[in-house]
Amino acid sequence: MAKVMIRQGGRSARIQEAVHKAVRELLGEIDRTEISVPMLAERAGVTPSTIYRRWGDLSEVLADVASERMRPQTEPADTGSALGDVEAWARQYAEEMATPVGRQMYADLFTRSGESAYSCRCCEYTRQQLEILQARALARGEAGFDIGEVEDRVLAPIVYHLLMGDRDVTPDYCTDLVGAVTSLPRP
Amino acid sequence: MAKVMIRQGGRSARIQEAVHKAVRELLGEIDRTEISVPMLAERAGVTPSTIYRRWGDLSEVLADVASERMRPQTEPADTGSALGDVEAWARQYAEEMATPVGRQMYADLFTRSGESAYSCRCCEYTRQQLEILQARALARGEAGFDIGEVEDRVLAPIVYHLLMGDRDVTPDYCTDLVGAVTSLPRP
Repeated sequence: MAKVMIRQGGRSARIQEAVHKAVRELLGEIDRTEISVPMLAERAGVTPSTIYRRWGDLSEVLADVASERMRPQTEPADTGSALGDVEAWARQYAEEMATPVGRQMYADLFTRSGESAYSCRCCEYTRQQLEILQARALARGEAGFDIGEVEDRVLAPIVYHLLMGDRDVTPDYCTDLVGAVTSLPRP
Repeated sequence: MAKVMIRQGGRSARIQEAVHKAVRELLGEIDRTEISVPMLAERAGVTPSTIYRRWGDLSEVLADVASERMRPQTEPADTGSALGDVEAWARQYAEEMATPVGRQMYADLFTRSGESAYSCRCCEYTRQQLEILQARALARGEAGFDIGEVEDRVLAPIVYHLLMGDRDVTPDYCTDLVGAVTSLPRP
């Protein structure tokens, strides 16, 4: 079981930080399939049982680190309209996730066969970004838009094609997807 | 590099079958993160170097097996209209992929950090199913529909929400997605 909502104490936070750092280092050095819990424990300076107790298994650790990396660092750009904001956000999302680091994050996030709180956490991050754009639109005096529609019509096809690799997710393609969102107010 | 299009000879086909069988067995016994190439080689009765030479690394083997499992076994149901056919196909796809076996297939397919021919192969399977529905529609005298639109508006949101686990992908939700495909002819 993923324990995303765990209360972070001092020791707990230090363990988390050490293990996350060890994962990020190892991912830069070897293939993810070569990483093991004992190897990770040694690098982080904790015992394997600490890792098993806290995360359950290795795939949960990797998903935890990936979801942390997907936390947005900045507010999405303000282009002056909801349509422009969603377009800029979608193009940036696609650009970032098409990189090797972005693809690695998907890989780590979707490796577990069961549902996990970590992928939900990523969904929550993107939803928060869209809520910022929504609030900004309303503050401008624009009509609101349907966040679920943006997820289904813009985000989902971007993620699908990046994962499948069956077509390039170009900036123009992102713009076309955003253009098909019926609830976005036209400037 | 994935070698999906490799020509299958007798020995080559026997190795593939033995390794695929060993993967399927091991996935039923232990967590995928515990599987290693030496363990897989021993179970399949081949050398580890055979596996490395043929697939590159473990994640490619797992993706190969997953994409094989995603090959449709039957033609999609004929409901009498393109709209009904796509709806039935989408509901069945969502139902199958929401199972533990389906989730495991996604996990195996999307574990590699780079692009892979195996995820493309899966895309090709779903496209072939949609082409069957398309041909059937035309044979009935219905207008054709845009397969890319069905992928982006129906398949992509289903895959996205199954992966993210942020909402249930219910039969009604699938029906709503199909209803929003503008190019599907209305009976």
